[in-house]
Amino acid sequence: MAHDTVDPAPAETTEEVGGYVRPAIDVPELTRLLDGKYAEVRALVRKNLSAHASVLEDAEEMGIDEFRDRVRDIVVEVASTGQTAFGFPKAYGGSDDIGATVAAFETMAFGDLSLLIKIGVQFGLFGGAIQQLGTKRHHDAYLKDAISGKVMGCFAMTEAGHGSNVAALGTVATYDVESQEFVITTTEESAHKDYIGNAARHGELAVVFAQLEIGGKSEGVHAFVVPIRVDGEPAPGVRIADSGHKMGLNGVDNGRLWFDGVRVPRTSLLNRFADVTEAGVYTSDIENPNKRFFTMLGTLVLGRVSVGGGGISASKVALAIAIRYADRRRQFEASTKGQEELLLDYGQHQRRLFPLLARTYALHFAQEVLAGRMYDVFSGNNDDEGDRRALESRAAGTKALGTWHATRTIQECREACGGAGYMSRNRFAALKADTDVFTTFEGDNTILMQLVAKGLLTGYSSDFSDLDQFGMVRFVAGMAVDTVLERTNVHKLFERVRDLLPGGDEWDQEAGLLDPNFQQAMLRFREEHMVSGVARRLKRGMDAGKDPGEVFSLVQDHVIRTAHAHVERLVLDAFVDKFATLPEGDNKVALGLMVDLHALTVIEADRAWFMEHGRLTTQRSKAITREINDLCRKVRPLAVDLVDAFGIPEEMLRAEELLNWE
Amino acid sequence: MAHDTVDPAPAETTEEVGGYVRPAIDVPELTRLLDGKYAEVRALVRKNLSAHASVLEDAEEMGIDEFRDRVRDIVVEVASTGQTAFGFPKAYGGSDDIGATVAAFETMAFGDLSLLIKIGVQFGLFGGAIQQLGTKRHHDAYLKDAISGKVMGCFAMTEAGHGSNVAALGTVATYDVESQEFVITTTEESAHKDYIGNAARHGELAVVFAQLEIGGKSEGVHAFVVPIRVDGEPAPGVRIADSGHKMGLNGVDNGRLWFDGVRVPRTSLLNRFADVTEAGVYTSDIENPNKRFFTMLGTLVLGRVSVGGGGISASKVALAIAIRYADRRRQFEASTKGQEELLLDYGQHQRRLFPLLARTYALHFAQEVLAGRMYDVFSGNNDDEGDRRALESRAAGTKALGTWHATRTIQECREACGGAGYMSRNRFAALKADTDVFTTFEGDNTILMQLVAKGLLTGYSSDFSDLDQFGMVRFVAGMAVDTVLERTNVHKLFERVRDLLPGGDEWDQEAGLLDPNFQQAMLRFREEHMVSGVARRLKRGMDAGKDPGEVFSLVQDHVIRTAHAHVERLVLDAFVDKFATLPEGDNKVALGLMVDLHALTVIEADRAWFMEHGRLTTQRSKAITREINDLCRKVRPLAVDLVDAFGIPEEMLRAEELLNWE
Repeated sequence: MAHDTVDPAPAETTEEVGGYVRPAIDVPELTRLLDGKYAEVRALVRKNLSAHASVLEDAEEMGIDEFRDRVRDIVVEVASTGQTAFGFPKAYGGSDDIGATVAAFETMAFGDLSLLIKIGVQFGLFGGAIQQLGTKRHHDAYLKDAISGKVMGCFAMTEAGHGSNVAALGTVATYDVESQEFVITTTEESAHKDYIGNAARHGELAVVFAQLEIGGKSEGVHAFVVPIRVDGEPAPGVRIADSGHKMGLNGVDNGRLWFDGVRVPRTSLLNRFADVTEAGVYTSDIENPNKRFFTMLGTLVLGRVSVGGGGISASKVALAIAIRYADRRRQFEASTKGQEELLLDYGQHQRRLFPLLARTYALHFAQEVLAGRMYDVFSGNNDDEGDRRALESRAAGTKALGTWHATRTIQECREACGGAGYMSRNRFAALKADTDVFTTFEGDNTILMQLVAKGLLTGYSSDFSDLDQFGMVRFVAGMAVDTVLERTNVHKLFERVRDLLPGGDEWDQEAGLLDPNFQQAMLRFREEHMVSGVARRLKRGMDAGKDPGEVFSLVQDHVIRTAHAHVERLVLDAFVDKFATLPEGDNKVALGLMVDLHALTVIEADRAWFMEHGRLTTQRSKAITREINDLCRKVRPLAVDLVDAFGIPEEMLRAEELLNWE
Repeated sequence: MAHDTVDPAPAETTEEVGGYVRPAIDVPELTRLLDGKYAEVRALVRKNLSAHASVLEDAEEMGIDEFRDRVRDIVVEVASTGQTAFGFPKAYGGSDDIGATVAAFETMAFGDLSLLIKIGVQFGLFGGAIQQLGTKRHHDAYLKDAISGKVMGCFAMTEAGHGSNVAALGTVATYDVESQEFVITTTEESAHKDYIGNAARHGELAVVFAQLEIGGKSEGVHAFVVPIRVDGEPAPGVRIADSGHKMGLNGVDNGRLWFDGVRVPRTSLLNRFADVTEAGVYTSDIENPNKRFFTMLGTLVLGRVSVGGGGISASKVALAIAIRYADRRRQFEASTKGQEELLLDYGQHQRRLFPLLARTYALHFAQEVLAGRMYDVFSGNNDDEGDRRALESRAAGTKALGTWHATRTIQECREACGGAGYMSRNRFAALKADTDVFTTFEGDNTILMQLVAKGLLTGYSSDFSDLDQFGMVRFVAGMAVDTVLERTNVHKLFERVRDLLPGGDEWDQEAGLLDPNFQQAMLRFREEHMVSGVARRLKRGMDAGKDPGEVFSLVQDHVIRTAHAHVERLVLDAFVDKFATLPEGDNKVALGLMVDLHALTVIEADRAWFMEHGRLTTQRSKAITREINDLCRKVRPLAVDLVDAFGIPEEMLRAEELLNWE
């Protein structure tokens, strides 16, 4: 960062310059804005959180089995309030509103995260797989008991040997035409299912993902409903082990499953997208096997949307504690006044916390857009192939950014609370340990960013959506770069941006740093430039006759940076778009500071790239740093209101000695 | 990062270009180099680690009290091997070699960290305070039993209300001339001692830091030996509570202490630097109270040196697991070969792990220099005021960089091991939770960086070493900038660098990126430029009549960045200097890659600053990124040897399913 220039003006002065007057935030009104269309759902969840607040202490005090049972009991109680049913069909007691499911999950993430993830496993993964991959016979047989929590179920996809690479799973389901059964087998040691929630203790059923084989021919990965436990004992042919103690989330009973020729009836195949006749004929409306595979996986996007939202909520909890503490805790006398200074008055403390606060607001609204898109796809409003692929990409990118943000924010907030932040009762221990796995489950973040990049390079065109990541390499290599660019809607966006530039190509060198058109144009330029650069490098590598794997390895960090650039642009656009719709007033002024602080922090973090690519002079780059410091001063008196507006139930913050510091 | 340029040449080609031939690392030889002059000490510790390897499982399986007792028992057993005595005087069974103490601590950090910190509390903090702040009467009374672990003791400095700001502690020790006793009192609720190791369960004695008051006059913070527990019960007037469950390090019994008029004899004052006569006259050879205070604190530098070294060792453990796993684990088919690729062959995976590996090597050698300087000061070789202040600054900076590095490295390595990394048995859970507090204990890292900055601005001159951080502001403000710069040895360094530049001011624009003179000159330029910039800004703020606290707050992030720049330069210099002394050979070639990768990664991370300040063209900036990618390809085949050379006992890595992945 650049610092050695003119001092930013002190806060008092700034408020008079340029007509800026410190806004008075209407906190309940801001909470209503954040809660959005699902305010009632969120209110119900807040009530449930408060009713079961003691689970935060139970997580520390109980033994692992006792705590797992406690979490299971709360899951069932919460289910009885209807909180977990929203996304299911009305016929089974739901509201057919997957957006409400996400809102409930996001809000639930203010509390104990074992409880959250157990809910995700039971209703999102297990119930969701039955609903999305199964047909009426499965819905009738299982949904009611799944929704009530009467029958606990597993989502048995991941294996020890294959996590992110689902297509290469080793479990096999062979169709036995004689008995009209599937025979499910763990073919080698590394093919056992691992880390499966609900498996170690509570699960009775599992949706098992396995390679379907009929008459010696493999039809790819499909899902089957398999009983794994009967009367508390493993079902015949099923071996179950505990995955063991984890860094966090120990209220979820993750387990391992081995199948030794386990037989299930033909009707156990979740057959929405493909079926096997009694005679053993494989049928599917989706001809291309890759496309079929991605269509099946695509219905499971809810998990990623939920986890990303959970990460954003966990960040809110951490920031609420750290900012409120820093507004009460004094340390070191800075002047001659005879009183120590509040931590939040230190410039460095503001620099540590406020950009994270602004980014949390930005991600909140990006998540809101994502949930809306998912609602549109699942409700059939906008659900063509392109919409679905775009949704998956956006879900992958938002999940990655939201969960990385959580890891970083929780760490920074913990450090900002010093030794007290290390005490389990002050909340950070659980927040940090429980969220840690968010970055790698429901899709490893790095792999997810590659999925985003694939979408960028293929323009979400349905013709190319069945390509795996290396198919993408070969595909891109087979095309002229111009064709790639033509297919990317990013390119179109850039054209649009260019049309927006009133003064031509040099406009961005003079535009105001606080002009959202400037901020958005910068991020769009970066994205477009990176996409075309990656395409060029991939093509050049292939033209030179190199091995696709080697080409990909060499370009991989560029690919991932490109995905970052894309998702960052989506996040900023969502925030700016939301801001534009707000009624004038003090809350809008306050959120405007958040928009500016977020946008400029993102540009500052990659200002070297912008300089390298001629979009930022060194003088202008330094000006951005000064502007950020100035924005931090303006945010200072608003910071506590901005975290209070998250509407986190006070019991969920828990950290009494930090929040009530005197 | 810049990516959209020419592909780096693939590894095979590179090896032929420029005469580079892949070195064959002699691992035992490299381990000897890393172990340095204390190889025997480290061998003893490795033996002790292996003997008590089961403690890693105990940490998960035992209840908290059982585990605390287990850790205490191992501490006593380890003490019986002589491992913890090295730094104490020969008369009490030690070797008078504080360097050996640090080497033992660093090596012990490969294992369970509760055990490590309990050792630090008992022998470093408690024993060290008796030794460094006390005189013969205290040594005779306490050292033998402290060194054997027969008597467990506390270092009772931190209070709930004051952690980093030790000068403002609230506990008071009033001299009662009548009884010739000190009366120790917790004056207000926030003045109770908190987070004190050994207090909750095992400690019998405590070195208590309190404001000494004689006849109504305060003489500042002094240390007293106070019995806190007799026959297992709190001593009269002492109230003890458990600090409670922590994120990690639960084998250390941290507690809270309240003193209600606790009386101790006059001789309980640790009186090396100040004493009170029977009649109640305060005496000290150090006239200036601030200087006396900092002299006392300065003797406790061992804690910071140790914790920094512990962080570096913990990083080694994380990297050893992640790199060895990535060299065995395959995921995704990248080419048509029909076999999945090793994680370590992915460019992005190399980018994630190898710069952290290089930085770990750099920090190792910086830590070696630091330990050597500490030995010099404590053995009396070089112990004038300036040497001591420079040591404290270097210890503060290395501790901050080493512990931040640990947090970052452990997180990255955990994510690089996916879901398996989340399982407690695979080591990362404990590594992450136990090291988390390293960034804020033994001095909060941010505060420590301010201490470093103070040294830079005052040139370690003894005239100014008694200034607190705001004293520094006022001091700087009272001087012309030129005077400040003249006093900084950094400035002299820069002059020396300039002399080195063969082609004048433009030389660095053309020098080879792999030329260590270039790498060092870049970091020296940055440091000098930032120091003068901070001084200018502080002076300008004071000249404008602003409140010192406000001036400091506005400049604080610049102050801290300056300290970073300084410590980064020290680290690189240490690594380059070490490299220069190595005999020619393959190990030197391999370490050369580490030097280059580390240096260029540091420059790349702040390349925006270098561009903003005219020391890097955009073309050259991009070239650095390409060079780093090329270095990663060269490191790839050496990476496993480079972590094996750390010499971590295999049982300490523990993560069997990761290390033996097939």
